[in-house]
Amino acid sequence: MSKRYSVAIVGATGAVGEKMKEQLEKREFPIKHIKFLASKRSVGKTINFQNQTYTIEEATPEAFEGVDIALFSAGGSVSKVLAPEAAKRGAVVIDNTSAFRMDIDVPLVVPEVNPQDLHAHKGIISNPNCSTIQMVVALEPIRQAYGLNQVVVSTYQAVSGAGTHAIKELEQQSQTFGETKDTQATILPVKSAEKHYPIAFNVIPQIDVFDDNGYTYEEMKMINETKKILHMPDLAVSATCVRLPVVSGHSESVFIQIDKEDVTVDDLKKLLADSKGIQLQDNPAQQEYPMPLYAEGEDPVFVGRIRKDLSNNKGFHLWIVADNLLKGAALNSIQIAEAMIEEGIL
Amino acid sequence: MSKRYSVAIVGATGAVGEKMKEQLEKREFPIKHIKFLASKRSVGKTINFQNQTYTIEEATPEAFEGVDIALFSAGGSVSKVLAPEAAKRGAVVIDNTSAFRMDIDVPLVVPEVNPQDLHAHKGIISNPNCSTIQMVVALEPIRQAYGLNQVVVSTYQAVSGAGTHAIKELEQQSQTFGETKDTQATILPVKSAEKHYPIAFNVIPQIDVFDDNGYTYEEMKMINETKKILHMPDLAVSATCVRLPVVSGHSESVFIQIDKEDVTVDDLKKLLADSKGIQLQDNPAQQEYPMPLYAEGEDPVFVGRIRKDLSNNKGFHLWIVADNLLKGAALNSIQIAEAMIEEGIL
Repeated sequence: MSKRYSVAIVGATGAVGEKMKEQLEKREFPIKHIKFLASKRSVGKTINFQNQTYTIEEATPEAFEGVDIALFSAGGSVSKVLAPEAAKRGAVVIDNTSAFRMDIDVPLVVPEVNPQDLHAHKGIISNPNCSTIQMVVALEPIRQAYGLNQVVVSTYQAVSGAGTHAIKELEQQSQTFGETKDTQATILPVKSAEKHYPIAFNVIPQIDVFDDNGYTYEEMKMINETKKILHMPDLAVSATCVRLPVVSGHSESVFIQIDKEDVTVDDLKKLLADSKGIQLQDNPAQQEYPMPLYAEGEDPVFVGRIRKDLSNNKGFHLWIVADNLLKGAALNSIQIAEAMIEEGIL
Repeated sequence: MSKRYSVAIVGATGAVGEKMKEQLEKREFPIKHIKFLASKRSVGKTINFQNQTYTIEEATPEAFEGVDIALFSAGGSVSKVLAPEAAKRGAVVIDNTSAFRMDIDVPLVVPEVNPQDLHAHKGIISNPNCSTIQMVVALEPIRQAYGLNQVVVSTYQAVSGAGTHAIKELEQQSQTFGETKDTQATILPVKSAEKHYPIAFNVIPQIDVFDDNGYTYEEMKMINETKKILHMPDLAVSATCVRLPVVSGHSESVFIQIDKEDVTVDDLKKLLADSKGIQLQDNPAQQEYPMPLYAEGEDPVFVGRIRKDLSNNKGFHLWIVADNLLKGAALNSIQIAEAMIEEGIL
């Protein structure tokens, strides 16, 4: 009988924690024992897992004794304190926050792209930012086949990336058709920020707070994480990250420049159709292209609208959509654990 | 007393026709006489203009006798038939459809950008596509000051660009939160297309029908019209055009490469703040940036989120928002008429 693991989910009551639980069930992850951890506030609440009822326990350092795999999604500050404690106690931490992503000692992994990086782990592995994950799944096969020297991405991001309260706010504001300007907004773009704007029937070009260079943290995450995951520190990557009135599913308009001359759209379509984790949806004649409404609840990264740039033989445009809570977060975390088992690390 | 003009609005009952009427009133356009024309179906309906009631007349060739300025916004097929008839009868046609935009004999004009092109008119002047107009207003001062050699734009377009039925559909679908996938869609992305998709809580990467090269007509309009208006036939322009659940206001994420080295973000901000038709909204520290919800009903093109590319000294990113029915259509048409008066052509 193959090995089974003791798993803990930290942040079990959040949007991503909930999806992590669902993915463990759906993918029949080899679980020996599971515990659900959260802040003191949620202790005592119950969670149903594989038809059994579990009581949420407090996330303390001691709670990680005997845990093999700790899946963190309770915010960066929780991870910063508790992930090292979990690792110290022998757990492998798979952290869905940005706390350790750019740490040189922490692998930042998308299993379809850089599973080999898992071998260098020192107890903590970071799950990349949602918008980064879906993009690099599409970029890596292109990089391997044709080289890659420039990426310009504009995102179309769903509110679920800002948590369940943001979804609720979109739902409420959506009732105010024609009067949305006067709606009260309290969550987006950033809960802790000074100003909040309605998201229903609006577009907010701010995700996360601003860096001094005029880019948002979300944009800097996409730029820096893409370079790290692809092992291309000098790749020209730029990002503009934008929030939309969509519940789930991030979309991305991506311009790339490859190294090789004379690659065709059909070459790219064939390559991506055969690549791991990708579902090609690209048939303009049939109006087939990826859309977030239909990506919700689905595992793959959907790629379509592949076009050659009309002024640049090495330029291409792609439209990339994925469920930001699944491939962008919970699913990728579980896939990291599965890849570690497959690679013989766990 | 300065000259006054006989004006006709063709397509008076449509979303843009209505805005044209409002703009003529608001801007106190020097009107001697006005008539409202539409298809047979609308004949007899009444329209209120400057506190007087007008009855809609049928748009026939003869209706343009004695008209100085004919503002067309009743679809390309109507313009193709009736615009030459109006011009033949001495009217200057300002056409808001795509019918003549790429015609070598027809000036394609944004008054802040290329008013001099008006002098070459032969009776018909084209109003550019909404998404093109707002972009070139921002690009032209940059081209003049620093040169311009590449434009990559991804759009975030409102449903009002697809007419009043599309707005109605968004309103109805917005009531179906969580069940939008099963909603009936009949308008978007293109009424005449085979498949329709819900727009509420969704993103549709198709505006207008597909060209054989994989680009949509909307994308090809942005590419070709930008080159024509800027008089840069060899400019590298590419576009990805996307429809969103926003009522009014198109947004654009634009990457540009200029010719000059070492231009700073502050240089660009100063330049654009002083440019005609632009309102700079760019203060990340105060979370100030353009958003479509607040651009609705406003005249300017709003520009913000100006950033220097982190890998390219000549690269910049801009976020451009405008009311697609005003600067993108009705307002620009009236401004063309005003520019012709100013230039002494009318």
